[in-house]
Amino acid sequence: MIDALRFDTNGLIPAIAQQHDTGEVLMLAWMNADAVAETLQTGRVCYWSRSRGALWRKGETSGQAQLLIELRFDCDADALLLLVDQTGVACHTGRRTCFYRAIRKDGVVELAGPIVDPATLYG
Amino acid sequence: MIDALRFDTNGLIPAIAQQHDTGEVLMLAWMNADAVAETLQTGRVCYWSRSRGALWRKGETSGQAQLLIELRFDCDADALLLLVDQTGVACHTGRRTCFYRAIRKDGVVELAGPIVDPATLYG
Repeated sequence: MIDALRFDTNGLIPAIAQQHDTGEVLMLAWMNADAVAETLQTGRVCYWSRSRGALWRKGETSGQAQLLIELRFDCDADALLLLVDQTGVACHTGRRTCFYRAIRKDGVVELAGPIVDPATLYG
Repeated sequence: MIDALRFDTNGLIPAIAQQHDTGEVLMLAWMNADAVAETLQTGRVCYWSRSRGALWRKGETSGQAQLLIELRFDCDADALLLLVDQTGVACHTGRRTCFYRAIRKDGVVELAGPIVDPATLYG
């Protein structure tokens, strides 16, 4: 079934994580074919870390895991939408979502502060 | 303010479009700095078409435009979340969202059919 997906020249596909019941967009990260396969098999979301060049089992270090509810893909089969149940916070800054800043006419606005001290996640 | 964003080696940044009031994730596309600037200036979403290599004013041909409600960006400043008000359908297949298929244990499932005949959008 993964053959249906189109990975880019680096073998990656962007994946949006959305909280399944509230609709909140939590983060955007990347997957390779192995990450997609592991996520479907285990039901726990696994990304590909471009900075570390390794599989990134979300929550492995921080405990802030994502349970997969459903994996969707788009019309061009080159983007994924993961409906998840997020434990705690998605963002490494301790915020629920990574999308906590907005560009407005008067500048950059911070919409939400940390609800968990990042030091407790990675300390 | 666009200087706050990190574009990739192709000068692009992925942008998620989400219907502002329902939370529905409509599509994922790409923007360059000019597309971000135009979107902020006009309040109508403009992407960068990688296939055409040109600015893509969403709805210019189909009429299915996206009014920008808010432009958010993530912790790494390398992904955008556009809260929009979508006119009609986001997907060129005539579906409301591009993410209309899911991978399930028993195979690929289609979750929604077209609500508009694509021929009427691009005919």
